[in-house]
Amino acid sequence: MFVSKPAPRSVRTMLLLLQRPHAAVACLLWCCLTGVLSIPDPRQREALIKQEASMQTGGQMVLTDAEQQLDALLFKMKQEEIMRADFPPAMHFFQARTLIRTSPIFSLLQKMPKGGALHVHDLSMTSVEWLVKNGTYRPHCYMCYTDSQSIRFIFSSQWPKALPRCSPWILLENLRAKLVNTTDLDNSIMSNLTVFTDQDPETVYPTQDVIWDTFEEAFLAMWGLVTYAPVFRDYYYQGLTEFYTDNVMYLELRALLPEIYELDGSTHDRAWTLKTYQDITRNFMSEHPDFFGARIIFSVHRAANVSVMTRVVEEAMKLQKDFPDVMAGFDMVGREDSGKPLWYFRDALSMPAERGVTLPFFFHAGETDLEGTEVDQNLLDALLFNSSRIGHGFALIRHPVAKGLSRKRGVAVEVCPISNQVTKLVKDLRNHPAAALMSENHPLVISSDDPAMFGSSGLSYDFYEAFVGLGGMRSNLGFLKELAINSIRYSSLSVKQQEQALALWQRRWDKFVSENTL
Amino acid sequence: MFVSKPAPRSVRTMLLLLQRPHAAVACLLWCCLTGVLSIPDPRQREALIKQEASMQTGGQMVLTDAEQQLDALLFKMKQEEIMRADFPPAMHFFQARTLIRTSPIFSLLQKMPKGGALHVHDLSMTSVEWLVKNGTYRPHCYMCYTDSQSIRFIFSSQWPKALPRCSPWILLENLRAKLVNTTDLDNSIMSNLTVFTDQDPETVYPTQDVIWDTFEEAFLAMWGLVTYAPVFRDYYYQGLTEFYTDNVMYLELRALLPEIYELDGSTHDRAWTLKTYQDITRNFMSEHPDFFGARIIFSVHRAANVSVMTRVVEEAMKLQKDFPDVMAGFDMVGREDSGKPLWYFRDALSMPAERGVTLPFFFHAGETDLEGTEVDQNLLDALLFNSSRIGHGFALIRHPVAKGLSRKRGVAVEVCPISNQVTKLVKDLRNHPAAALMSENHPLVISSDDPAMFGSSGLSYDFYEAFVGLGGMRSNLGFLKELAINSIRYSSLSVKQQEQALALWQRRWDKFVSENTL
Repeated sequence: MFVSKPAPRSVRTMLLLLQRPHAAVACLLWCCLTGVLSIPDPRQREALIKQEASMQTGGQMVLTDAEQQLDALLFKMKQEEIMRADFPPAMHFFQARTLIRTSPIFSLLQKMPKGGALHVHDLSMTSVEWLVKNGTYRPHCYMCYTDSQSIRFIFSSQWPKALPRCSPWILLENLRAKLVNTTDLDNSIMSNLTVFTDQDPETVYPTQDVIWDTFEEAFLAMWGLVTYAPVFRDYYYQGLTEFYTDNVMYLELRALLPEIYELDGSTHDRAWTLKTYQDITRNFMSEHPDFFGARIIFSVHRAANVSVMTRVVEEAMKLQKDFPDVMAGFDMVGREDSGKPLWYFRDALSMPAERGVTLPFFFHAGETDLEGTEVDQNLLDALLFNSSRIGHGFALIRHPVAKGLSRKRGVAVEVCPISNQVTKLVKDLRNHPAAALMSENHPLVISSDDPAMFGSSGLSYDFYEAFVGLGGMRSNLGFLKELAINSIRYSSLSVKQQEQALALWQRRWDKFVSENTL
Repeated sequence: MFVSKPAPRSVRTMLLLLQRPHAAVACLLWCCLTGVLSIPDPRQREALIKQEASMQTGGQMVLTDAEQQLDALLFKMKQEEIMRADFPPAMHFFQARTLIRTSPIFSLLQKMPKGGALHVHDLSMTSVEWLVKNGTYRPHCYMCYTDSQSIRFIFSSQWPKALPRCSPWILLENLRAKLVNTTDLDNSIMSNLTVFTDQDPETVYPTQDVIWDTFEEAFLAMWGLVTYAPVFRDYYYQGLTEFYTDNVMYLELRALLPEIYELDGSTHDRAWTLKTYQDITRNFMSEHPDFFGARIIFSVHRAANVSVMTRVVEEAMKLQKDFPDVMAGFDMVGREDSGKPLWYFRDALSMPAERGVTLPFFFHAGETDLEGTEVDQNLLDALLFNSSRIGHGFALIRHPVAKGLSRKRGVAVEVCPISNQVTKLVKDLRNHPAAALMSENHPLVISSDDPAMFGSSGLSYDFYEAFVGLGGMRSNLGFLKELAINSIRYSSLSVKQQEQALALWQRRWDKFVSENTL
């Protein structure tokens, strides 16, 4: 009844209000609940708006004066961003990338300490440009062209044996020596190692099948490059550098732990690969004291059959026991829709618990928009297998029981906006289902999945999409702060390590805030 | 612990199970709640899957034997539909229309008694082909071409006065008399009265702005045709026929109640228009005894200013009083994102309650993907103004407080899948936010908004998208049944009328089920 500009009221209503103000207020409350009266009370409206705002991600964050200053600046920047004719989150990332790069919000997000990146894949963490300019320029690098217009690589001290369905091997140093300009060659190699395209992405990738096929082909193309021991080591170090430069202080990497080979064709086992990750991480940390570290989630392709999966889980348990510091746990990778569901592997996945052996799970689940299929049960099954987090969880909002379990148990969803857009689960990122999860502060973190594959890098592009697209005008600095804190709180680090990481993050955060509010 | 194919278990676990089965079961329940154990119990899993299924729209429906038979048939049909290379709900409706038309599920949905269509607009209820073949072929029909490449119409006994920014008037009967073949002309007229296109819709409508501009231009184009009294009457009758033929038994029509004109230029007021709707509805019902009727939601464009809105609400209250049978209530139309928010008109909208006068509201709200804007508050405000239903509510899943109120009060969301796709709120309809609402059986109905404008008709196309796209493999006959019942339960009909409508619907439903299970 408290309209800011009071409209003319009937005498009867006015009299009631004057004579029995308490009764009128009581009626207001009652009427609001029962829905009888239809004159909204602006104070009550304000209270409901505030209530909703306080429920969202970051809604309970208390901001310091300096943070409030930065928040006001961000709000202004976002208002300007939303007025742009080409609104980046509504566009395909491939077409929006340049716009995002020039956005003042993006510059700020790059500088912002974002905490950890908890959902990133080993073979797509480092820029493709680095891989081509650095990896393929090494001596003994051979390349062939497949029948399916892709490429394959091998490093070898001798001329390698021909691959089926591939042209004769070409020694790249010989080829490059014959070329006046190697730019075209390098660009053509790069285009085979990523799904990024300058052309219209809708035309190039009309369906989910097409984008997934290209995606898996690009992994095959880079395989021989990145599994060559010297490249493998430098690729990982360079990946850490790229995330570190993007102000990411911690990484949890889904890694296939493939056989790594040397120039003479000899190979290393998984333990060697895991150990190498550990060694390089330690080197990196000693050179960058404000980097907190990296842990590995050993991941196997879901195309494996039951007996392979059983062996792999056995091996994962052993690795977890032998490398408890660097190994975070286990996951399956590859397209869910075309793979076997988690439940198909239930016997293998039950082994650790049956044996009382620790093997934390970090399952991809719900990276689908097909409802009611067997694969669509992965979300519930991941939770029943006590998964520590949920990779993607795109379908979670359509699964109220799984959503409730995830919330109750604090099982965070790893939201990867650009990845979901590129794989055609969602077009306009304002419409990403995680926006609904954020409106209820569901446990979640933002990650970048396969940044190099998507022509992205680090975490800032995905933070941009989450902040401007999924969050809209509603998300503020508290939202960003909570997401950064979430990335530590929902990591696989021990409670004590989390406290240390948070303390480190807080110092960097305070510096960031003070440097951007002058 | 009850795995269907038991995996090898450690002796310790087996012994525990054999020695203390009750303790093991108790532990299982406890462990599931606390998330300690990670061996899922298949029975518990089954129970959770069933629990989730029972929560969804239709999840509590008890099906008769015959209905279960039909349900099994539908399940099979849907499995085949989902295997199609071109999955219609993942495609733009303009490109999917032919595929849908040839789908066996669609044929069944056409025959299915769908109850009422509660969100349909007056000027887009009838096919454009009818309008051109019937409306523009009448005598005295003049057309001109606007500078913006659209068209305008007028019927007049005299040569009409030229319109600004339009070519000289052309008398269509003269023009057609000169043409050997009028097909091209008719097709060109049709294309101006709809947003449907045979070309790539992404190219023709790259942004929401472009589609909305074309949309509003098409309404302007048909204005002079459908506001001519003889066309107006026949257009409405034909619209009822099209919905009736599509097995829709009841309609609530958002109507602008425009001034309707006669050949001599004289005009009728809103009361006349409303009365005409009432008369024609009665005629139609007398000729089609199994059609239950139609009611009008008087709607004004939200571009109106406050003083116009105040006058219109005054008029709406009078119409509601004078025509309580046919008038259902009041709404505002036009694009929310570019209009004033509901709260801007709060004084005008408060008048009915202040005066103790009945004027039910049926507000469009949340037809947006911009979060945190003033317009984005329309959902909460519609509920605070005690709206009887919510038009679209596309953004509802991002507003937990508004969602809670809508659920608690039984304020149904009018979900219009094809409309939301055409206006570019969502691309792949499997990803429509109402899928999440359906997973919790949120109060909702399916409607078609502007079928003629989208190249659709009646309600079956939208039911197809809701059933196959939003519902996925999960939605069944119970889902369809509940949606049909919802369309009566959430209508503006009195409780008694609803009972009558439900009885009529049930007779038609039983007949449909028995005819399709032989």
